[in-house]
Amino acid sequence: MSETSFADALLAPRSIALVGASGDIRKNTARPLRFMRKHGYAGTIYPINAGRNEILGERAYPSLNDLPAPVDHVFVMIPGDDVAPLLEDCARAGARVVTVYSDGFGETGPDGMARQQALVARARGLGLRLLGPNSIGLANLHSGAILSVNAAFETESLLPGSLSMVSQSGSMMGSLLSRAAARGFGFAKSVSVGNESDVTVGEVVDALVDDPDSKVILLFLETLRDAPTLARALERARSAGKPVVAYKLGRSEQGDALAQSHTGALAGNDAAVDAFLKAHGVMRVRQLETLFEIAPLAERHGPGSQRRADTPARVAVITTTGGGAASVVDNLGLHGMVAVAPPPAFIAEMAGLGLKLRETPIMDLTLAATSAQYKGLLEALLRADWCDAVLSVVGSSAQFHPDLAVKPLLEADKPADKPLAVFLAPEAPESLALLRAGGIAAFRTPEACADALSVFFQGTGRPPATVEPTAWPTGLPSTGMLNEREAARLFAELGVPVVPSRLLDASRLEQELAQLERDPASLSYPLVAKVCSRDLAHKTDAGAVRVGIGNLAELREAIAAMLASVGQHAPRARIEGILLQPMEGRLIELILGYRHDPLVGPTVLLGAGGITAELNPDYALRLAPVDQDEAMRMIESVRQTRLVRGFRGLPLGDCAALARAIAAFSRLAALDGAAVQEAEINPLFVRAEGVVAVDGLVRLA
Amino acid sequence: MSETSFADALLAPRSIALVGASGDIRKNTARPLRFMRKHGYAGTIYPINAGRNEILGERAYPSLNDLPAPVDHVFVMIPGDDVAPLLEDCARAGARVVTVYSDGFGETGPDGMARQQALVARARGLGLRLLGPNSIGLANLHSGAILSVNAAFETESLLPGSLSMVSQSGSMMGSLLSRAAARGFGFAKSVSVGNESDVTVGEVVDALVDDPDSKVILLFLETLRDAPTLARALERARSAGKPVVAYKLGRSEQGDALAQSHTGALAGNDAAVDAFLKAHGVMRVRQLETLFEIAPLAERHGPGSQRRADTPARVAVITTTGGGAASVVDNLGLHGMVAVAPPPAFIAEMAGLGLKLRETPIMDLTLAATSAQYKGLLEALLRADWCDAVLSVVGSSAQFHPDLAVKPLLEADKPADKPLAVFLAPEAPESLALLRAGGIAAFRTPEACADALSVFFQGTGRPPATVEPTAWPTGLPSTGMLNEREAARLFAELGVPVVPSRLLDASRLEQELAQLERDPASLSYPLVAKVCSRDLAHKTDAGAVRVGIGNLAELREAIAAMLASVGQHAPRARIEGILLQPMEGRLIELILGYRHDPLVGPTVLLGAGGITAELNPDYALRLAPVDQDEAMRMIESVRQTRLVRGFRGLPLGDCAALARAIAAFSRLAALDGAAVQEAEINPLFVRAEGVVAVDGLVRLA
Repeated sequence: MSETSFADALLAPRSIALVGASGDIRKNTARPLRFMRKHGYAGTIYPINAGRNEILGERAYPSLNDLPAPVDHVFVMIPGDDVAPLLEDCARAGARVVTVYSDGFGETGPDGMARQQALVARARGLGLRLLGPNSIGLANLHSGAILSVNAAFETESLLPGSLSMVSQSGSMMGSLLSRAAARGFGFAKSVSVGNESDVTVGEVVDALVDDPDSKVILLFLETLRDAPTLARALERARSAGKPVVAYKLGRSEQGDALAQSHTGALAGNDAAVDAFLKAHGVMRVRQLETLFEIAPLAERHGPGSQRRADTPARVAVITTTGGGAASVVDNLGLHGMVAVAPPPAFIAEMAGLGLKLRETPIMDLTLAATSAQYKGLLEALLRADWCDAVLSVVGSSAQFHPDLAVKPLLEADKPADKPLAVFLAPEAPESLALLRAGGIAAFRTPEACADALSVFFQGTGRPPATVEPTAWPTGLPSTGMLNEREAARLFAELGVPVVPSRLLDASRLEQELAQLERDPASLSYPLVAKVCSRDLAHKTDAGAVRVGIGNLAELREAIAAMLASVGQHAPRARIEGILLQPMEGRLIELILGYRHDPLVGPTVLLGAGGITAELNPDYALRLAPVDQDEAMRMIESVRQTRLVRGFRGLPLGDCAALARAIAAFSRLAALDGAAVQEAEINPLFVRAEGVVAVDGLVRLA
Repeated sequence: MSETSFADALLAPRSIALVGASGDIRKNTARPLRFMRKHGYAGTIYPINAGRNEILGERAYPSLNDLPAPVDHVFVMIPGDDVAPLLEDCARAGARVVTVYSDGFGETGPDGMARQQALVARARGLGLRLLGPNSIGLANLHSGAILSVNAAFETESLLPGSLSMVSQSGSMMGSLLSRAAARGFGFAKSVSVGNESDVTVGEVVDALVDDPDSKVILLFLETLRDAPTLARALERARSAGKPVVAYKLGRSEQGDALAQSHTGALAGNDAAVDAFLKAHGVMRVRQLETLFEIAPLAERHGPGSQRRADTPARVAVITTTGGGAASVVDNLGLHGMVAVAPPPAFIAEMAGLGLKLRETPIMDLTLAATSAQYKGLLEALLRADWCDAVLSVVGSSAQFHPDLAVKPLLEADKPADKPLAVFLAPEAPESLALLRAGGIAAFRTPEACADALSVFFQGTGRPPATVEPTAWPTGLPSTGMLNEREAARLFAELGVPVVPSRLLDASRLEQELAQLERDPASLSYPLVAKVCSRDLAHKTDAGAVRVGIGNLAELREAIAAMLASVGQHAPRARIEGILLQPMEGRLIELILGYRHDPLVGPTVLLGAGGITAELNPDYALRLAPVDQDEAMRMIESVRQTRLVRGFRGLPLGDCAALARAIAAFSRLAALDGAAVQEAEINPLFVRAEGVVAVDGLVRLA
């Protein structure tokens, strides 16, 4: 095997074999050799073609076994069925990485998936790493190593630069490269991961963290296939101060479903993936072109810091086109940001420069500010403590006098701690290019500009909290469903306040009731009675809950009615007893949910309670466990909780207790002795003092 | 005065005077003459400059009084103070329209507004129409009549075309023209209305309706200054089948506020303006570039028809880039549309063309469909009854083989009744231009593409219903506030079911109570008691409502407590009595609101009730009055009503009665004898049978 490291063999190979290289320049399979010659790759290329000893004027080899020296990376463009038998040759030729363009594997269905798994097993046995199959390839734009059939590399010249992209879609990688190149954004590496059978997005990101040419990492994602590896790589990127930006499909339900089916991934859940990306410091953009347009902001200022939900970022806006500026500000408003008016002291200061500003949120300089005044204003804003970012919106001068229009923006002294964004209202490709060359974030549309600023200021979250594992309570079953009483015990064990309850054992119900008859003081009315059964997930629907029971007679009656109803609705439910609980008061009711998400692992959800919650999605989702600080951020981002946080004179709820309960509940992610698949507290009552879990369920793995 | 009509003098003048034309080509005021010569205006131009008899090589005149023949249109570029004295010269010179570029009027504050009003009065007295002041001017791109200093006309050649634009922002007009021109969109007319002191957007739209060169009318709006004129023009446009598209600032609260202050307009309400635009058939886009990108859809298919809220438009999606298509589909999903899979019969039909489709919502043709197959599929989709639109997403071929990529799209036989939209994933300006030339709607970003399709399918509404005016009920005050009982009478008069009530007169409260003592059967308990006062808008806050009163003793106690509380909270409130009402049951509670909006006039609102409604805005707003059909659409678009429309087995509410009540309430817009400024029914109870207004208020003009 070659001495080259995995990362170098993957991203910066010194020698490359092209298996299936064609001599017919019209064919896709002729492209890699053409591309590399066109763009000046200085390493060694071995075209492999059993039928020819010359390809496009270069020496070709009949097989990998005939190479004169070891090869770092093999790019495979032969029919899918022929790939597996080739792997031994790859290993013998010294390759560390094999990138497989060939398709007909996991993306085609179960048979293809079986072929793919066999391929990976064989590769691993041989010490090879596999990129793909079904990968359009990868490129190093600095060295010209283009192991790719992507038409995007037909361009006359490559534009090497500081961005690197990892894409789950081969065709979109090319599309994004072409869009970015047209705007002057150069790339270091671009990698299509194909089916991610072996090397996944996470491993590529990990390699890019160590790549000094890659300053910002861009991800085009359809799903997540290996979250733990990606999480580790993202945390390394965070430590290294290397920003990661993602455009991920699946913001809408159908988009989510499609992205999954398109890539043959597990059933997805965009909210969980979103929580994952935020937790690990990824800036997720909503508009396609924001993916690269945001790069100068990210490169200069990092991924932004997490803000409290209730302090909107303040943007100082200067412009020569009021309408153009308003079109951005309007979109900023939709993302919860505000344009901020200059305070009187600042206006007075600027009057010293001869600038007449007014105390309005858009500083319109239409009336003849000189370039020096503009620069002075800009520099003052970039140092002002009353705004978090500066937005400059340029009008027709950007179109007709690019040099003049962008001069003050380029020349201003720009401190590293305050972002500057520019929107050009007219069609102004030259000005965009000048700003790009000057490392200034400039946007083509008001929507992308607002998207970038809001993503930047929404900031990034934190990885799941590290907590001591809790031992699985003795006596609780460790598989299947827990019944309500068992669930309550588990929650209490973790530190969640739960409503006290008394279980009347189903097997001796009459004796239990007789006992109550003898000792009436042992219960205090009114109370709630519920059928306790691990087989009843939806008790209310089954008529298995009665509230406001005032005395023993009513209790007897309620029990009989509930048992009858359950017998009808769920005849096979095993009934373990009747649970008696006091009636609890509350200010609001919430839902706490826990789910081991198939893509991202443990997640915790806080949501509005009650039936109308379904009409108005209102929840916060995080990777679990969370600490109390993160729990408080969750509380702040659920609208319903405003009712207990000082809303129109309503009484305050105990948010500190709520945060403690969320953090405690989220420790379901760190249990020793059993694995929780899903859990729910519904409702969780929030009171002026304390919170209490009233009902819950737990499903174990 | 010239014989030319107002519309021709405005949009197609045959002779033009340029007052304040400069001979210094660096100056803005030299531009109109330069522009018109550059772009070949064939009419007569009279440059007016007191100091020179030659300007840019052409004869100049010292004043309008020296012209050899009458002039249609005068463009004024002199200091604001000099404009008013010029008007008499304009009139003497035969002008019909005077466009004023000069600023320093209404946009500067109250003094400027006074100057502006004086200017308009003078113009009207002279029979002149005024465009502006503070207008950057207007242009006829077919004739080259460019009465504008807009830098956008510096372009080498004009691109005449079928779009016309009216803009409240001068600078954005230029920006949009340049963006559209770069994409091959030509214009017929472009008009900056400036301060709209006399000629408003509506009158320009009206003139464009009659202009055969203008096929689609685009509006860039910051506010509405003359809604009735615009409404009439929009209805004429609808009758003429001429689509109108608008981009309006103010979707966010701050954007709304800014747009208003920027233009010196009245306090705004974007929701009301939105209702106005929809009601009058305007397609309001959300993304800036959609404004012109949607034009081919609008020109070919009109403004779309209104759909029921619960039938999402079905889009058939064909692509050569799965990721690219998914990026559009994801956005379609966010707008409530769905990508639809081909049914088995269609798949079988296409197999006849040699195409292997699968029953998935994205038809991926990556694997080598021929141009003929692609065209065949496209034509079949455009005729299929299982989809409402066709979306084609093109991958790298759009960049490298524009002719081949767009050929099937251009050549396919496209029926007029099914829209086709195209998104090009890579940077592909040539393909965009080819599609533009072919009249096919093609989009640069997935977001704009989804925006356009959703705006198209969201369709347009209907103008306010025509209803017989209702006479103002005798005995009700016709100014100020009505008290609750009077409000109830008014609502009942209009046909809204209101809760029965009995008023205990405040002036003889003891006698009234004594009477109840004597005749206990005259009341049925439990009941609700409220303080009746036209000075108490928020009764609950003032402790002026008690529910669940079970007998006369409780009633006495409640009355005493309420009066004490009101005495404390609102000591100056005039108390007219105590209102007694039965306790009413309900499935849900809603709010009905009526407001004479300062911009658009009468509006009616249906919203979710209860305190949490403020947390989750959930309402439908329409121009009033509405008929029952429109009322039903309102009901369908308020999420809360799903609870009574078959949600998870909950009982059904009487939506027909609700629709009748909404329509009746909306007739507040058609009262004879008094003008309602604001009214509210809160809450309106929806029951299994019928609805009932439980409380309400009315404020008269």
